[in-house]
Amino acid sequence: MALSKKPVNGMKDILPEEMEIRDYVQNVIKDTYRSFGFTPIETPCMENISNLSNKQGGENEKLIFKVLKRGEKLKLETAKEEMDLVDFGMRYDLTVPLARYYANHSNELPSPFKALQIGNVWRADRPQRGRYRQFMQCDIDILGEPGNLAEIELILATTTTIGRLGFKNFEIRMNDRRILKAMASYSGFPEEEFDKIFIILDKMDKIGLDGVAGELQKEGYDREAVEKYTTLFAGVNEAKDGVSYIADMLSGYLEEKALVSFREIVDAVEATKTADFKLIFDPTLVRGMSYYTGTIFEIAMPEFGGSCGGGGRYDKMVGKFTGNDVPACGFSIGFERIILLLTESGFQVPKKAEKVAYLIEKNYPGDKLAEVIAQAQEERKAGAQVLVVRMNKNKKFQKDKLAAEGYTQVREFFRK
Amino acid sequence: MALSKKPVNGMKDILPEEMEIRDYVQNVIKDTYRSFGFTPIETPCMENISNLSNKQGGENEKLIFKVLKRGEKLKLETAKEEMDLVDFGMRYDLTVPLARYYANHSNELPSPFKALQIGNVWRADRPQRGRYRQFMQCDIDILGEPGNLAEIELILATTTTIGRLGFKNFEIRMNDRRILKAMASYSGFPEEEFDKIFIILDKMDKIGLDGVAGELQKEGYDREAVEKYTTLFAGVNEAKDGVSYIADMLSGYLEEKALVSFREIVDAVEATKTADFKLIFDPTLVRGMSYYTGTIFEIAMPEFGGSCGGGGRYDKMVGKFTGNDVPACGFSIGFERIILLLTESGFQVPKKAEKVAYLIEKNYPGDKLAEVIAQAQEERKAGAQVLVVRMNKNKKFQKDKLAAEGYTQVREFFRK
Repeated sequence: MALSKKPVNGMKDILPEEMEIRDYVQNVIKDTYRSFGFTPIETPCMENISNLSNKQGGENEKLIFKVLKRGEKLKLETAKEEMDLVDFGMRYDLTVPLARYYANHSNELPSPFKALQIGNVWRADRPQRGRYRQFMQCDIDILGEPGNLAEIELILATTTTIGRLGFKNFEIRMNDRRILKAMASYSGFPEEEFDKIFIILDKMDKIGLDGVAGELQKEGYDREAVEKYTTLFAGVNEAKDGVSYIADMLSGYLEEKALVSFREIVDAVEATKTADFKLIFDPTLVRGMSYYTGTIFEIAMPEFGGSCGGGGRYDKMVGKFTGNDVPACGFSIGFERIILLLTESGFQVPKKAEKVAYLIEKNYPGDKLAEVIAQAQEERKAGAQVLVVRMNKNKKFQKDKLAAEGYTQVREFFRK
Repeated sequence: MALSKKPVNGMKDILPEEMEIRDYVQNVIKDTYRSFGFTPIETPCMENISNLSNKQGGENEKLIFKVLKRGEKLKLETAKEEMDLVDFGMRYDLTVPLARYYANHSNELPSPFKALQIGNVWRADRPQRGRYRQFMQCDIDILGEPGNLAEIELILATTTTIGRLGFKNFEIRMNDRRILKAMASYSGFPEEEFDKIFIILDKMDKIGLDGVAGELQKEGYDREAVEKYTTLFAGVNEAKDGVSYIADMLSGYLEEKALVSFREIVDAVEATKTADFKLIFDPTLVRGMSYYTGTIFEIAMPEFGGSCGGGGRYDKMVGKFTGNDVPACGFSIGFERIILLLTESGFQVPKKAEKVAYLIEKNYPGDKLAEVIAQAQEERKAGAQVLVVRMNKNKKFQKDKLAAEGYTQVREFFRK
């Protein structure tokens, strides 16, 4: 039986042209983040399944690729449910593994610790165009810094990177879980319902303010609370300075220092940013993960409907591993979407080296090969990329293809 | 319940110091291989389980991490054996996925195609010191080139890379499956026993020629054949030119062109190599994988007992996917061993940028933060790596740690 040529369902092979762009983008990301003092680290692609199934990951926990136990540990006869069969799972993000890593190694790491992670994650989503079940994430996180210096540096580093990749006119939308909560509290919703309410609020982009109000009412929430809530959002939208408006309306519901910190972040970023973007307050921004505790942010591109990355503060996650909370804040770039946008815009990777192709006639004497290769070695030493291959029968076709691959010079070697 | 801080059993977290070396080595590898015209590609970390369980991978097939089916596809009640439960598996090497990739995309790829892959593979080996169940492999392969130009370029590219990483005095051991077969055939072993015999021969390093003879006899092979076989190996060892000796002894058993090609490889590599190594004929070299069909090679380091990489020709693998064989040859660097050797030798990554740390006093006014960050942004723009952090209570300790991390300059910012 012939083997299957296709990659597994929902995952993709990466062809040379895309790979060139991916490598370039990764290098820009690494160089820029290094200039901000972030340090690359790596964790295994698998985690103990119990670490991945503890409600930190929200909906993503339903999408875990689980790894079968091996050898004697697998007891198929007595297994009653899925969890009896598996011990590891593929990570669905880089944040849970980072918190575990930090918990495990904090003694060996600087404080604060500025981590850079670039790695694949896996989610068993229904396969669909442009969305894959293995995809690369690219996160920076600062652990051990309680103040907004973390948020400022994360936003600057991320936007500098995106700017260097040629993107303009984008937005960083920012909100704070504490503002979200104060808004719900002020409107009169009971605290135990907040998570449900935020899931509905999160649909604002798609269904608008009226849609959100409708869904809240349909869920049976107090009509007066829903009205107060929607009036509040309408008010922020109309206000010249949304943060001031919120500050006025929510006094008594929101601690002053959350707003001061919020403003400091905006001011510092505006004063020092290097990329062409707007930092805006978006009171409807929720971010799916339930682990966020403070500031949250998201990248919005004019070229692309959805989010191109995001992050926020999650001060309670490391404590789940150690019992002691450690302040933490992170920002993740939507690597695959960046690649998609660059590819679709016809982006060309800046050329680094001259590409030279050597075509050697098929029956060129074997004992003379060394001379040709010696010449190639000289050119390589001088910095060129030298491809040494046999001349094909259809040389014109071969040369056209080489030209398309960026080989600007071709040298031909014939049997004398 | 607290979550587990440890990585999954047998896999490891990579700390910043090791990560720095890994990134450096990866860059040297990529730059060098690119100069030889190799093109980076990537395949998903999972493959369809049937592609991984078809006897191509030898012993590695017993070590596959298998991925549980999801949703309705998982039928726990009716499952009788492991294979009923799984659909994907983690790749155990990069060669099988490459052959699938080439089969799937050959129309979109240059011919010959020179691929570079750097990626993790997984093997559920018994965990032991220095050997991990997730590890990085780094392969170059040439598909579509039937002649020894492939072998020559692969050996040159690999040895140039290893040389650039500072290794000297290493050996490339080379053999050919056709020589292996001819030696067994000449000695009188039946062809269907060759694979078994080669597994025993592969132990030569550990048990010596007498040990191999003993094991062959214990397996019940003809005493005369065993004697002829061991005499032949002893003869090669004593011969001044092993290849000539083999040529004389095996005439009639070994096609002339295999030896001519072997000699051409040695001559071309010797004439054009840039690194300090010896290319030697090793008639006892077997290489585990059963998919090899011609030349095989292995890197041996004086610093390290085992192999630090290897590869060979596997002309029959792509055909398993398409029905049409495509000549193929590859060389894999033992990335993790290279990292281990560099780490143990105290290797220091060459410094690229000035590292500057900004220490900001804890109660520094929030509205003045922007000025400090603006200064950091200027230094970053000028090429420095600038870490902006809060001043710790124990400043001396903090500065000592920063110095150890390579921060050569520290700027302090106090509240006025």
